[in-house]
Amino acid sequence: MTCIEKLREAWRKNNSLVCVGLDPIIKRFPKHMASSDEASVIFEFNKAIIDATADLVCAFKPQFAHYAAEAAESQLKQTIDYIQSEYPDVPVLLDAKRGDIGSTAEMYAREAFDRYGADALTVNPYLGRDSLEPYLSRADKGVIILCRTSNPGASDLQDLLVEEEPLYQRLAGEIACEWDTNKNCMLVVGATWPDQLSKIRLIIGDDMPLLVPGVGAQGGSAAEVIANGASQAGDGLIISSSRAILYASDGEDFADAARKACSDLRDEINVAREAL
Amino acid sequence: MTCIEKLREAWRKNNSLVCVGLDPIIKRFPKHMASSDEASVIFEFNKAIIDATADLVCAFKPQFAHYAAEAAESQLKQTIDYIQSEYPDVPVLLDAKRGDIGSTAEMYAREAFDRYGADALTVNPYLGRDSLEPYLSRADKGVIILCRTSNPGASDLQDLLVEEEPLYQRLAGEIACEWDTNKNCMLVVGATWPDQLSKIRLIIGDDMPLLVPGVGAQGGSAAEVIANGASQAGDGLIISSSRAILYASDGEDFADAARKACSDLRDEINVAREAL
Repeated sequence: MTCIEKLREAWRKNNSLVCVGLDPIIKRFPKHMASSDEASVIFEFNKAIIDATADLVCAFKPQFAHYAAEAAESQLKQTIDYIQSEYPDVPVLLDAKRGDIGSTAEMYAREAFDRYGADALTVNPYLGRDSLEPYLSRADKGVIILCRTSNPGASDLQDLLVEEEPLYQRLAGEIACEWDTNKNCMLVVGATWPDQLSKIRLIIGDDMPLLVPGVGAQGGSAAEVIANGASQAGDGLIISSSRAILYASDGEDFADAARKACSDLRDEINVAREAL
Repeated sequence: MTCIEKLREAWRKNNSLVCVGLDPIIKRFPKHMASSDEASVIFEFNKAIIDATADLVCAFKPQFAHYAAEAAESQLKQTIDYIQSEYPDVPVLLDAKRGDIGSTAEMYAREAFDRYGADALTVNPYLGRDSLEPYLSRADKGVIILCRTSNPGASDLQDLLVEEEPLYQRLAGEIACEWDTNKNCMLVVGATWPDQLSKIRLIIGDDMPLLVPGVGAQGGSAAEVIANGASQAGDGLIISSSRAILYASDGEDFADAARKACSDLRDEINVAREAL
């Protein structure tokens, strides 16, 4: 089963477009955990969050920098191994936004897919199509390409007009028509930009999933994301939330609170899907 | 001393614009080393290369993917620690091409500058200026921004015309005029594109160093890089070579062979500098 097939199954089985971002920030961990030995507590925290939410999500998305800053590569591997063995129906999207030339990109593909065993990897398109070939050629894996990001400065490059079309739209069209020969591409589009989301959905058609960060802490609205980004079948989206779920409580009830926050987001999204 | 001051001192003291890229590929290691225990051999190899070339270079550039693919983060740290303690006059440029939004970029800055102790980090501009703020604000550290990369597909995005100007030129101008408030920016420009190199030097003026990969294995000419990219003082460049130096011999003489390849490249570059 390819990554995107696994994703479609998870959408259906868990009736959910929610992706939980596994972005460990030790100083925000529940008080009873934050006091213990630092890096080793990360897996313990992640495991509790994963167990509490796995039946409510379509994907998990560990964010690489949060592990790298803590020298916690072994905790990242342990986290991904745990999901793959206990919840094999839920795809793992490794969020590392890799971007480098051919021979080096080969190394990053090995890291993400072979060392860590991720189902998909986020990547940066600035270096052009050939720089993504080592990921694109892994047809069973997902390649999630930055298109229109959620931050305020996204407009600096991504909105520049190329033959009267913003760069991000031009890129979305190129990926859909030229780069996605193995049908394993997805795009990152920030929840903070509903207009851009609808333009991208129009350009790429119905089949390509969009990874949408930025609901919750960054201010994006789930209802607007659905109205502007969903496919005609009412899916096509991986709506990622991290802090609002992970740190819903800093007490011993943190996993229950995370489950509730995740469930609430799923419900909010599903209400919007029914209104389509 | 800031990273760029340290670089200028190394240019002068070692009379060299050469940067040795520390891109370990275990299967290309000398035969007597490649047979030993895998990841642990990386530091041993790097140490021999560093000791053999430190007086001939202006910088060392470890490439992150080569360590990440081998689960060799501890070897990367050991390598950088070794350079900082034994050759503190030679700046270490960590080549990881990071690109992510604010809170995550903070984590990558911590990783590069605090965990690994690098003097500079390569980064990707696609997410816009605010995504680079956590690096730009570290005034003592170098921020090396991708501009026109050495690969064939570089043209896919970087050459697109924005108000009749290629994107990479527009970006170079923005960085020089707007982003570089702490005077700690540098740009990546591939040696494979001498015309683009000269356009960029014209746009950014004389003060901003350029990191130029792509001589040797990728086919760029050192003489053309100097003619098109040097500052009026005959420096301003960090000319990076990896494979042609690291793997000059696969025998027990590999360090001597690396020293000779590095010295030859320095001489070739210095002949071209004298002809300016």
